[in-house]
Amino acid sequence: MQLTIAEATGLAVRGLTRAGMSAENARITADHLVDAALCGHEFSSLPRVLALAEALRGKAPARPTCVVRENHCSALLDGGDNVAYVVSLHAIDKAIDIARKNGVAVVCANNTWFSGRLAYYVERAARQGFIAMHTTNTTARVAPFGGVDRLMGTNPFAIAFPSDEDPIIIDIGTSATTWGDVVLARTKGEPLAEGLAVNPAGHPTRDPQEALDGAILPWGGPRGSGLALAVQLLGILAGSELVIDDISNYGLFFVVIDPKLFMPSDQFPARVAAFRQFVTSNRAQTHGGTVRMPGDSSQQKRRDNIAKGVISLDDAVYARLRELGGD
Amino acid sequence: MQLTIAEATGLAVRGLTRAGMSAENARITADHLVDAALCGHEFSSLPRVLALAEALRGKAPARPTCVVRENHCSALLDGGDNVAYVVSLHAIDKAIDIARKNGVAVVCANNTWFSGRLAYYVERAARQGFIAMHTTNTTARVAPFGGVDRLMGTNPFAIAFPSDEDPIIIDIGTSATTWGDVVLARTKGEPLAEGLAVNPAGHPTRDPQEALDGAILPWGGPRGSGLALAVQLLGILAGSELVIDDISNYGLFFVVIDPKLFMPSDQFPARVAAFRQFVTSNRAQTHGGTVRMPGDSSQQKRRDNIAKGVISLDDAVYARLRELGGD
Repeated sequence: MQLTIAEATGLAVRGLTRAGMSAENARITADHLVDAALCGHEFSSLPRVLALAEALRGKAPARPTCVVRENHCSALLDGGDNVAYVVSLHAIDKAIDIARKNGVAVVCANNTWFSGRLAYYVERAARQGFIAMHTTNTTARVAPFGGVDRLMGTNPFAIAFPSDEDPIIIDIGTSATTWGDVVLARTKGEPLAEGLAVNPAGHPTRDPQEALDGAILPWGGPRGSGLALAVQLLGILAGSELVIDDISNYGLFFVVIDPKLFMPSDQFPARVAAFRQFVTSNRAQTHGGTVRMPGDSSQQKRRDNIAKGVISLDDAVYARLRELGGD
Repeated sequence: MQLTIAEATGLAVRGLTRAGMSAENARITADHLVDAALCGHEFSSLPRVLALAEALRGKAPARPTCVVRENHCSALLDGGDNVAYVVSLHAIDKAIDIARKNGVAVVCANNTWFSGRLAYYVERAARQGFIAMHTTNTTARVAPFGGVDRLMGTNPFAIAFPSDEDPIIIDIGTSATTWGDVVLARTKGEPLAEGLAVNPAGHPTRDPQEALDGAILPWGGPRGSGLALAVQLLGILAGSELVIDDISNYGLFFVVIDPKLFMPSDQFPARVAAFRQFVTSNRAQTHGGTVRMPGDSSQQKRRDNIAKGVISLDDAVYARLRELGGD
């Protein structure tokens, strides 16, 4: 199934409003999901509308996001139990506002759940000239290094840098695999790779169902686990629970920095562009290949897909979205 | 060879002042190196005095560190070509001062070289109640993922959280191995493990000399490489070169945050302690083992060594340090 960007956005908005979201929040969420589709991240795109509708069924109506604490370089937002696709947008825009005035912003948000591609929010700041860092802790599915109990989320970490060309965008999860990939392996009846998960007894497993019942392991051994713990603690700073047992109360953390604090106007984006040029012009490991910067592949796909004007969607997902939207 | 803490400090101070450091800077550096020894990090401790003396021989006298730009939530320091052991201390103390007044500080420093254990500086802030993040880019020895040319340093990243108990301190390098470990393997005539380095032609190598002539690979594949690139770009923000070819002009980056911006006084350190308690009381992967928090092992060794009142030092290093110090 191929849809225009407007059709895809409308489909998502109708589904999300029927599931209980306000028109404004449905539009913010749909824009995020359609952008994910354009960037080639199918799992993070329109199929998420179905998961969101499912999650919304168990929830009381959300309250508006509001600022509960603020000083000239920081803010704390109460997400009102809105989905993080919405709260993160409010939070990054608040952080950009503060950084525009004062050069630096640290913004936290709580009472929110689900998180989209963190790249979306840090890119938004980088395209306005700011360095942005963003983390969120999520539903507990990952054991710390050396442990076997699920205490941390997949806890992504993202940072973006403004550039005279496209921003450089780094967006990494800190778990060895994702919940979605394990569910997909179960659906396909395929075993997991070695070293990704343990079963409820704490033994290594390649069985997706055992992994879902047990715990996913952290990415990158003790170092990756350290990063995951840091993201968890930044979530706790934002007001999250120590460990999130359900789909609620994630802790979002943002730092936004104006590079003009440290060098004359326009110099940093030029330096970033020069660094990208230098890195990508160096020798690649594979003969005839190129060294790529993080985030470049997604941005290239988005350009290509916008030029084509269409996004692809699985037929079955399309049918379920039409049904949800009452089409 | 076993030395008391005072003897070890005196030995380092004498060597560093004879190598050209001011008495004050020698003392700051010696305190860092002795702390590394107490924490069990032998390579990062007193043997570094010899490497520092070697590096200082090629350098003009350093100027004092000074603040060249400042606003109410940020500062940029010119390190005056002083060693980063000294400049990082000035920078973290400046950041703590700013954060104490305004809640958030972003501090950068340039014109400096070598960096010690980043844990030392973030712990200093965490013990005063602050969350602290610190990165530095270093001499180019590491290829980005997919590349074979040395463009980045071993680019460490550290973050620490204040706690009612000991702080939680995460301090990770972003290279698959360290320069020091490769040199050690060459000295011992041992091959490297697979996947750590490439030779100058860009082919995988386990030969330490080929690795030293070629490039070390990033830790953790594309994700670790992404982090290494982020640290490089934060160094560039601080005023470092795009790629550091010699031992000079590292870019230090610090963020310090007062958790009281986001929750009532004393609540965050209590939450961190509760999280540590929760994590370490969960099941371990090895029967009878425990789940450890990052940084705990170093802090435990320090307590033990302070109780014993002595640090160990290789006899040959001791002899060379005495010679350097003119004893």
